[in-house]
Amino acid sequence: MSFTADDWVLVLDMLGTVVFALSGVLVARRLQMDGFGLLVLASVTAIGGGTIRDLVLGVRPVFWVVDVLYLWVILITCIVAIPLAQLLSRAKVNWLLLRADALGLATFTAIGVNKALDLGAPAIVAVGMGVLTGVGGGVIRDVLAREMPMVLCREIYATACIAGGLVQVLVDHQTGQTPLAMLSGMLVTLLIRLAALHWHWQLPTFGKLDQH
Amino acid sequence: MSFTADDWVLVLDMLGTVVFALSGVLVARRLQMDGFGLLVLASVTAIGGGTIRDLVLGVRPVFWVVDVLYLWVILITCIVAIPLAQLLSRAKVNWLLLRADALGLATFTAIGVNKALDLGAPAIVAVGMGVLTGVGGGVIRDVLAREMPMVLCREIYATACIAGGLVQVLVDHQTGQTPLAMLSGMLVTLLIRLAALHWHWQLPTFGKLDQH
Amino acid sequence: MSFTADDWVLVLDMLGTVVFALSGVLVARRLQMDGFGLLVLASVTAIGGGTIRDLVLGVRPVFWVVDVLYLWVILITCIVAIPLAQLLSRAKVNWLLLRADALGLATFTAIGVNKALDLGAPAIVAVGMGVLTGVGGGVIRDVLAREMPMVLCREIYATACIAGGLVQVLVDHQTGQTPLAMLSGMLVTLLIRLAALHWHWQLPTFGKLDQH
Repeated sequence: MSFTADDWVLVLDMLGTVVFALSGVLVARRLQMDGFGLLVLASVTAIGGGTIRDLVLGVRPVFWVVDVLYLWVILITCIVAIPLAQLLSRAKVNWLLLRADALGLATFTAIGVNKALDLGAPAIVAVGMGVLTGVGGGVIRDVLAREMPMVLCREIYATACIAGGLVQVLVDHQTGQTPLAMLSGMLVTLLIRLAALHWHWQLPTFGKLDQH
Repeated sequence: MSFTADDWVLVLDMLGTVVFALSGVLVARRLQMDGFGLLVLASVTAIGGGTIRDLVLGVRPVFWVVDVLYLWVILITCIVAIPLAQLLSRAKVNWLLLRADALGLATFTAIGVNKALDLGAPAIVAVGMGVLTGVGGGVIRDVLAREMPMVLCREIYATACIAGGLVQVLVDHQTGQTPLAMLSGMLVTLLIRLAALHWHWQLPTFGKLDQH
Repeated sequence: MSFTADDWVLVLDMLGTVVFALSGVLVARRLQMDGFGLLVLASVTAIGGGTIRDLVLGVRPVFWVVDVLYLWVILITCIVAIPLAQLLSRAKVNWLLLRADALGLATFTAIGVNKALDLGAPAIVAVGMGVLTGVGGGVIRDVLAREMPMVLCREIYATACIAGGLVQVLVDHQTGQTPLAMLSGMLVTLLIRLAALHWHWQLPTFGKLDQH
C-alpha cells in the first residue's frame, strides 16, 4: 500500500482536528459549559482555521460541508474527552490546553502552507496562509471565551508559526518532497512553541520605552 | 394564490432579520450608541449568520448583495424600533432581548438546516449548518459588544439549536414536506430555549470537579 | 502617462493598507507584543476589511492571495514603523492611532463603495459594502486586542462612514467620474471623523431614558 502526499495531508488534518477539538473541550470545561455548548466550541476551534483557509483560497463549498468525516471526528472526540477531562484539575487543564493548542497550531500551519504551495503561491503568501490556517481556530476559540488570544501572547506564538512556515517553504523548494517539507515545518513550529512554553522564552517585546 | 416552500423560507428569513435587527437595537441601547452605530450593529446581527452560511456553502455573492430587500428591512426596523425602545426600562430591554434572540435563533437555524438539505447534505452537516446560521449573527453582536456570547451561556442555547435541527431533519426525511419540517424544527428550538429562559433550565455542566 | 481609475483605486488601497498596518503596529506596541505577533496584528488589520469585502462579493481567491504586493507593503511598513514607534510616548501613540485609523477608514470605505458600484449594486448595498470594508479591519484589530471596537464608540464613527458613502454614491451617479467620487467620499468620511475626534462631537445617543 502506497502512502501518498494526499494521505499525509489527511492524517495531519485529522490530527489537527482532534487536538483543536480537545483544546475547545478544555476551554469549555474551564467555562463550565454544558455538553452541547462544548460541542459548538470544539467545532469552531477545530474547523475555524480550515474554514477561513478555504474561504480565502476560494475553495467552495468549504471542506467540512463536502467531507462529513470532520464533524464525526469532532463529535467522537468530544464524547471520549468529556469523561476523561472531568478527572483533571484546573492546573492540568491549563497545561494540556497549551500543548494541544501547540500541536494544532503546528499541524494546521503546515497544511495551510501546503495548500498555498499547491496553488503555486509565492513564499510570502504561503507563509501568510499557514499562519492564518494555524491561528484561525484558536483565535475564534479565545475570542468566544473572552480570553486574550494566544497569538497576542508574548511567548513566541506567531514567531513559531512563521519560522515553521519558512522552513517548510524552503524544504519544499529544495527537495520537492511534500511530506518531508510538511513534517519539517510542523516540527519547527511545534518545537519552538513547546520550548517557548517550557523555558518561558520571549522575543524582545516592542514598547519597552513605554514609561517616558 | 399558492404559497410555495420558497415563500415560506422568505417569510421566515424576513422574520429572523427583523428580530435579530431588533436584538442589535436593544444591545445598542444598552451601550448608548448613536443612531448610525446602532444601524451597523443591527445589520451585522441580522445578516451575520446568513452571510457565514452563504460563504461556507459557496453561494456568491452573498444574499444581501443580490437582494436589496434585507438592508431595507433592517433600516426600517431600526427607524421604527428606536423611538419605541426609548420607552423601555433596562430590565425590560434585557427581557425582550433574550426573547428576540430566541426567535431569531429558531428561525435562522431552520433556514440553515433547510439550505443544507436542499444541497443534499447529510444530517450531521445539515444540523451543523443550522447551528452556524442560527448562532452566527448573535455571536458577532455579543463579541462586538464585549459580552459573553449567549452560545456559551449555561441556559441551553446550543442544545435548543441542535434539538431543533435534528427534529427538522427527521421530519423532512419522513414526510418530505419542507414547510412542515421547518416549522417543527423552529418550534422545538424556540420552545426549548424559551422554557430554559423561563424555568432557568440547565444541562449538567461540565467541569463540576473543578475544586480538586 | 495616463492615470486611470484603476490606478487611483490601487493608490488608495496601498494608502489604506499602510495606515491600517500602522494602526495595528500601534496597538501591538500598547500590548507590548513581540515583532512577529505585531506582524500578524498589522496584517489582519490591513487586509481584514478587504478580505471580508472580497468574500461577500464572491471574488476568489481573495486579493492578497493573487497580488503579493499587499503582504510586502505590510512587511515593509512594520519594519519601518517599529523603530520609529519606539520613540513615541503612550499619549502620542493613542493620538496617532486614532488618526491612522480615521484615514484607513476613509480610504477603505471609498474602495468598498467603488467595488459595489462597479458591480452595478444599488445605493444601499454600495454604502453597506463601504461600511463593511472600512470597518472590518479595525474591528478585527480591536476584537483581538480586547478593546471596545471603535465602530461602537460614541464619537461619530459609523456616521462618518455612512455620510462619506452616500456622498460618493451621489457624486458617482451625477458625474460618472469614479476618481472624483472616491475622493469626495473619502474627504467627507475623513473630515467628519477628524472633526468628531477634535471637537468631541457626538450624535444624540440612544438610551437617554435609562434611569427609569
